[in-house]
Amino acid sequence: MTPSNGPLASAAATPAAAPTSSALLTDHYELTMLQAALAAGTGTRRAVFELFGRRLPEGRRYGVVAGVGRALDLLERFRFDDATLAVLEEGRVVDGPTLEWLAGYRFTGDVWGYAEGEVYTAYSPLVVVEGTFAEAVLLETLLLSVYNHDSAIASAASRMTMAAGDRPCIEMGSRRTHEEAAVAAARAAYVAGFASTSNLAARARHGVPTTGTSAHSFTLLHDQERDAFRAQVDALGVGTTLLVDTYDVEEAVRTGLEVAGTELGAVRLDSGDLRAVAVRVRELLDSLGATATKIVVTSDLDEHAIAAMAACPVDVFGVGTSLVTGSGHPTSGFVYKLVAREGADGTLQPVEKRSPLKGSHGGRKDAFRRHDAAGTAVAEVVTTRPLGGQHGSGEEPPAPPEPGDRRLLVPLVRDGEAVGREPLDAARERHLASRAALPAAAQQLSKGDPVLVTLSA
Amino acid sequence: MTPSNGPLASAAATPAAAPTSSALLTDHYELTMLQAALAAGTGTRRAVFELFGRRLPEGRRYGVVAGVGRALDLLERFRFDDATLAVLEEGRVVDGPTLEWLAGYRFTGDVWGYAEGEVYTAYSPLVVVEGTFAEAVLLETLLLSVYNHDSAIASAASRMTMAAGDRPCIEMGSRRTHEEAAVAAARAAYVAGFASTSNLAARARHGVPTTGTSAHSFTLLHDQERDAFRAQVDALGVGTTLLVDTYDVEEAVRTGLEVAGTELGAVRLDSGDLRAVAVRVRELLDSLGATATKIVVTSDLDEHAIAAMAACPVDVFGVGTSLVTGSGHPTSGFVYKLVAREGADGTLQPVEKRSPLKGSHGGRKDAFRRHDAAGTAVAEVVTTRPLGGQHGSGEEPPAPPEPGDRRLLVPLVRDGEAVGREPLDAARERHLASRAALPAAAQQLSKGDPVLVTLSA
Repeated sequence: MTPSNGPLASAAATPAAAPTSSALLTDHYELTMLQAALAAGTGTRRAVFELFGRRLPEGRRYGVVAGVGRALDLLERFRFDDATLAVLEEGRVVDGPTLEWLAGYRFTGDVWGYAEGEVYTAYSPLVVVEGTFAEAVLLETLLLSVYNHDSAIASAASRMTMAAGDRPCIEMGSRRTHEEAAVAAARAAYVAGFASTSNLAARARHGVPTTGTSAHSFTLLHDQERDAFRAQVDALGVGTTLLVDTYDVEEAVRTGLEVAGTELGAVRLDSGDLRAVAVRVRELLDSLGATATKIVVTSDLDEHAIAAMAACPVDVFGVGTSLVTGSGHPTSGFVYKLVAREGADGTLQPVEKRSPLKGSHGGRKDAFRRHDAAGTAVAEVVTTRPLGGQHGSGEEPPAPPEPGDRRLLVPLVRDGEAVGREPLDAARERHLASRAALPAAAQQLSKGDPVLVTLSA
Repeated sequence: MTPSNGPLASAAATPAAAPTSSALLTDHYELTMLQAALAAGTGTRRAVFELFGRRLPEGRRYGVVAGVGRALDLLERFRFDDATLAVLEEGRVVDGPTLEWLAGYRFTGDVWGYAEGEVYTAYSPLVVVEGTFAEAVLLETLLLSVYNHDSAIASAASRMTMAAGDRPCIEMGSRRTHEEAAVAAARAAYVAGFASTSNLAARARHGVPTTGTSAHSFTLLHDQERDAFRAQVDALGVGTTLLVDTYDVEEAVRTGLEVAGTELGAVRLDSGDLRAVAVRVRELLDSLGATATKIVVTSDLDEHAIAAMAACPVDVFGVGTSLVTGSGHPTSGFVYKLVAREGADGTLQPVEKRSPLKGSHGGRKDAFRRHDAAGTAVAEVVTTRPLGGQHGSGEEPPAPPEPGDRRLLVPLVRDGEAVGREPLDAARERHLASRAALPAAAQQLSKGDPVLVTLSA
């Protein structure tokens, strides 16, 4: 089951990545707010929005930021072309002056954010958007959709790859989630350390290595299991992975080795008591001389099942449903809140909703990761930048509160231009490094408190 | 908060519905199986695949089929154009002969399925695909993705609209799920009785009515809450919905009525103890003469929270997170299994995997809904069609096992042409009728057994 990772197809060659408008992937109320604010003259006020979560999903020790690169792509396509405007006009979603304003829309402000793959905790300011209210309010739903989904998947995936240790995990959950969410899930899983995916669009659009051999239907298609194995080995070579649990596992292993020889790449187990069966199959393979043939397991695994196989002779984990559903937490709970805006006097002022239960926290934030003397991450230091008349992108970012604090907000968009793009492997490497710096408790899969405390400085 | 439902934009005017290929929204292994089967000469064998669930999500009393129309659209776009083939070639996913075969691919077989909006239970044969193995095996992941996602949303949505009774539910969960899953979720919720959505792409692509007014950020943008209300009423009229919990609810209600007058359309509550607050706000509105002003509530609702407000003066429910995450069950657990295929002797034979835990059930199925004398649905009767040399689409479908049994499988694709398309409102009406025929226990939100038993006849 070696992933075959061809050269990354160019964007132009990727059908589903066609540059269609993303502007309707949003909520009706953003446009009604826009219309009202434009009419009232407040739409042009400078504004700062922040995307953050008030808490980690229950019991989780850390979260993983994913979706940054996708958000930048979608932001670039957030334009109101004629077809999009026609929808709004026909449905009378907004009035004529607003349609005219939208026709010329492009986001011209600045966005800072956590780099992709970084770990985060409660109140980490994951994205900071600065622009006019009118241009920034329109991005609420699109940014939340991408971050809420992709980070939920990456956060689950990270627990799985951590539990698997050196053994590779393959993402194979496409069939259990929306067909486009599947592509994003494969990408997010790769950021969080998965080795490959079954999803071909993830290869085409994001360069994620793909892998795949056969299903039970392939064995059932043939009159005999031996015929199926022969057909597969003839077509894919002896290095392929044979699915051996359609009928009798041990008989299938013997048949597979008769067909492919002891150079058979791997056998896959997809049902039964995987731990017990893996032990028996390993013994059988070894006894027949196939000591290098690997064992792949794939039946409803999650991070707990993977951890429970720590001592089992399993070489590769295939994960589906639990990965694409965020292992119990399919969404991240992020919100997008106005934290500062220009007042009637022209200065930028912090704002927040007054509510005993849903305290937001006004002001333009910065964030730093603090480490102890041993280099272990211990806290997220969130600072509030003094607000004034200055335009954000012209300002020098504040110095870290303490020497050694690592700055977490990086420029993603400057004056409307995406500047935060990077290869997906950079996000993947960042995640592994960021996770490795967490306290040992991060490796516990049981429910517990976040391993990073959030400090206001 | 009256939904504004403009004329359905034509598909041509809908940017994101551009007819790009859907062929890579699939798993690598389908193509490796294809290559091996074509080389072995078994790819051309006639085959029947079935999409079904072995059980309902735990505790659920019934499920709702959704995604049928989307599946037909995606199936039509399942073609391997040059860009798609280039991805497979560059990545060496399949060999040259397979690429050539794929270049000419279109599905030419037949598909039967439950009509959209129909309720289902364990082992309901939701989709039956008949074609050659080669052409039918390629559809596995795409069909599962669509049905697993959309049906999970519709199944949750149905419980919510049932709990809400005559009071409308608005779908507003786009921000909590993948940006494209959001569009499908809005569509599925509409099928299951939601009145409208916040998602603009769902309006553009599927004609779902949209609605939306303002967020807390709009109030915070302005120097005074009164300014925000004034701006909104000026732009959207007195029939609009004012969000009244940014600061003090009762003060906001008074301010809103001062600005809009007693003709104010609605007020929205998004935080706090909604039941208690709704009672106070209703009293206040009435005491100020705004007896027709409605109350919309929107804070982390699910079907249980809605049911708990049965006696509250609430007029409209806005549902987000729990809807788009399937209220605890974000996927439906459907599988796509080979149930019959042509053998070496040229006849169609039932096949199934031998496994104590994952019994499939071989043979080409039909399904009927059986009712008792009072017209209440009591059972799903699943029959197995005698297999022979006949091509499926030419056969007369079997008669219902008992008079009055309602046939559930309808033609969706005949000889490769989609024949099962219908307006979304037809699915919506079907759902309400299908649900209304269920036993009273279907209305219980607590965990319990499925209300329809599955019978083999």
